[in-house]
Amino acid sequence: MKAFEKNIRKVEPYVPGEQPQRKVIKLNTNENPYPPAPGVTKALEEMNTDRFRLYPDPTAAPLVNALADFYHVNPDQVFVGVGSDDVLSMCFLTFFNSEKPIFFPDITYSFYSVWADLYRIPYECQELDENFKLVKEDYYKENGGVIFPNPNAPTGIYEDLSVVEDIIAHNQDVIVIVDEAYIDFAGRSALELIDKYDNLIVVQTFSKARSMAGMRIGYAISNPTLIKYLNDAKYSFNSYTMNQTSIVCGVEAVKDREYFENGVRKIVETREWAKEELKKLGFTYLDSGSNFIFAKHPEYDAKELFEALKAHDIYVRFWGSERIEQYMRITIGTREEMEQLFAFLKEYMKNK
Amino acid sequence: MKAFEKNIRKVEPYVPGEQPQRKVIKLNTNENPYPPAPGVTKALEEMNTDRFRLYPDPTAAPLVNALADFYHVNPDQVFVGVGSDDVLSMCFLTFFNSEKPIFFPDITYSFYSVWADLYRIPYECQELDENFKLVKEDYYKENGGVIFPNPNAPTGIYEDLSVVEDIIAHNQDVIVIVDEAYIDFAGRSALELIDKYDNLIVVQTFSKARSMAGMRIGYAISNPTLIKYLNDAKYSFNSYTMNQTSIVCGVEAVKDREYFENGVRKIVETREWAKEELKKLGFTYLDSGSNFIFAKHPEYDAKELFEALKAHDIYVRFWGSERIEQYMRITIGTREEMEQLFAFLKEYMKNK
Repeated sequence: MKAFEKNIRKVEPYVPGEQPQRKVIKLNTNENPYPPAPGVTKALEEMNTDRFRLYPDPTAAPLVNALADFYHVNPDQVFVGVGSDDVLSMCFLTFFNSEKPIFFPDITYSFYSVWADLYRIPYECQELDENFKLVKEDYYKENGGVIFPNPNAPTGIYEDLSVVEDIIAHNQDVIVIVDEAYIDFAGRSALELIDKYDNLIVVQTFSKARSMAGMRIGYAISNPTLIKYLNDAKYSFNSYTMNQTSIVCGVEAVKDREYFENGVRKIVETREWAKEELKKLGFTYLDSGSNFIFAKHPEYDAKELFEALKAHDIYVRFWGSERIEQYMRITIGTREEMEQLFAFLKEYMKNK
Repeated sequence: MKAFEKNIRKVEPYVPGEQPQRKVIKLNTNENPYPPAPGVTKALEEMNTDRFRLYPDPTAAPLVNALADFYHVNPDQVFVGVGSDDVLSMCFLTFFNSEKPIFFPDITYSFYSVWADLYRIPYECQELDENFKLVKEDYYKENGGVIFPNPNAPTGIYEDLSVVEDIIAHNQDVIVIVDEAYIDFAGRSALELIDKYDNLIVVQTFSKARSMAGMRIGYAISNPTLIKYLNDAKYSFNSYTMNQTSIVCGVEAVKDREYFENGVRKIVETREWAKEELKKLGFTYLDSGSNFIFAKHPEYDAKELFEALKAHDIYVRFWGSERIEQYMRITIGTREEMEQLFAFLKEYMKNK
């Protein structure tokens, strides 16, 4: 080992879901099966690329304003970043600087522990109960901050807003982040509580309900005080994170409320139908409020099933980690894609 | 102060140059006065926005490959990020983990000390000499890593490659980063030394010579070992940083070598002419190898001049900090923009 290598930070990198570049039935990274709002295409076609020579607006004002309009908050309550991963990572860096451990569920978005390690933030996982539900009392203990997704990933379970509020109310001396990547497919958002609790930050994304995973846009909504801290940290890091196309396309994706609501409705309908189909095939699953279903089968090994699906160009997600060894996470695709999935599963089960 | 505020990271944010949204003569943030390569516009017009629903290629392979082709290196020697700020920040996080201070010049890119503070990296500034040149012997002392820009910012001074190599050669037990944002306007790049020194990382950007500040693309070139460490850290941070448009537009901007070289030549010509004009007006300046000139006038106060220019919608950059109180940094615009600048200066000096 070279001398200079001893001071290099070695990390165990997070392994994202596969992104095969050829055409497959892609139900593995919770993408939206429908394209983004039509305004997005139009905006790009009309884009003045001469302006690319200039730095983008560091405040991404048009996008911040569009989000503020949509969610009926003030622009100084909105922070935008390069996907919700960027926003969440910036939140960890800014808000979790206590000596006490931050709390998050034992089964949750795998990036939380990665960021905590990266920023040397102590953490303690709180076990979900046997039904993979949050145990709110576990979050009453002293801690350095709280973060959980609602709906949770990869379980898909939506916790009622009363549970979310209970956790926020019991943690008013620390920052509580509710990571709502999938909220549009579920129910009431913690955004309702923003004015009531000044320790609350809600993080959402354009990658799921807004069909813009490829454009990397996420945002946090909170009170102006916390958003200012977040912006200060961000500006000390990289002044210009949102490029000109993401600002322009983001605005178009937010503006078209009707297209957005239609898209969400179609996915929720397909999800509810898919649950019935899974049931017919003998699968059990957690009650998803997301654009995916976390399912297992009492007779078929999840890993084998996952491999068999992949061999037939149907990609779902499988972790094989503790407590979820037998679960697969299936993203809700179009009705047609789901039909192909179920046709394959029927064949598979017939022959095994 | 609320209890939760005591664990919030408070930082003194970096203040970037102003980005006025109305039309001004903008010579303050070293942007390119010419638009990006024509292929960029075409690529956006033909963009398949349906694909925005999918995550981008996390490896940004088309862009990495285009850069590898252009610089005659292997793709595993190239790392891309959201502007060179993102790349540099990721380098600080990955490579500067020693207890010993890292070294950089006292007058240099202001973000270095900001990132060092952010990541709790000890640092020690080495004074430039009275002509604002690097003193290479200062970098022979034991340290935790070295970073400097070449050409330096905001002085614009290009150090001969022999000076750069001398510093690298004397620091083979630590990582040396040469930040070459402006190299295309200057001379030989440290890229020539990549195969010779395995502790060397060269960082460049699309924001200057490639006219793409608005698209946020930067890159590092090094050996496969160091690039792998950088990618591992990046994946643990945010898997998908480069959005689909930046990958596609980036490829087009790299491919068009002729357009790139023409653009650089025009700017260098304007710069050399501008130096003569400044001299005629009594300015002195450092010998710039960049797309800007760092200039002062023996009779006119820099701050007053800066304010007067701004009042006439001509934006240049002024810091007023130690050792450079009387300097303004003037970005090289088009010939016409520079003529307007000089016309104003002549008027100003006549009346003062």
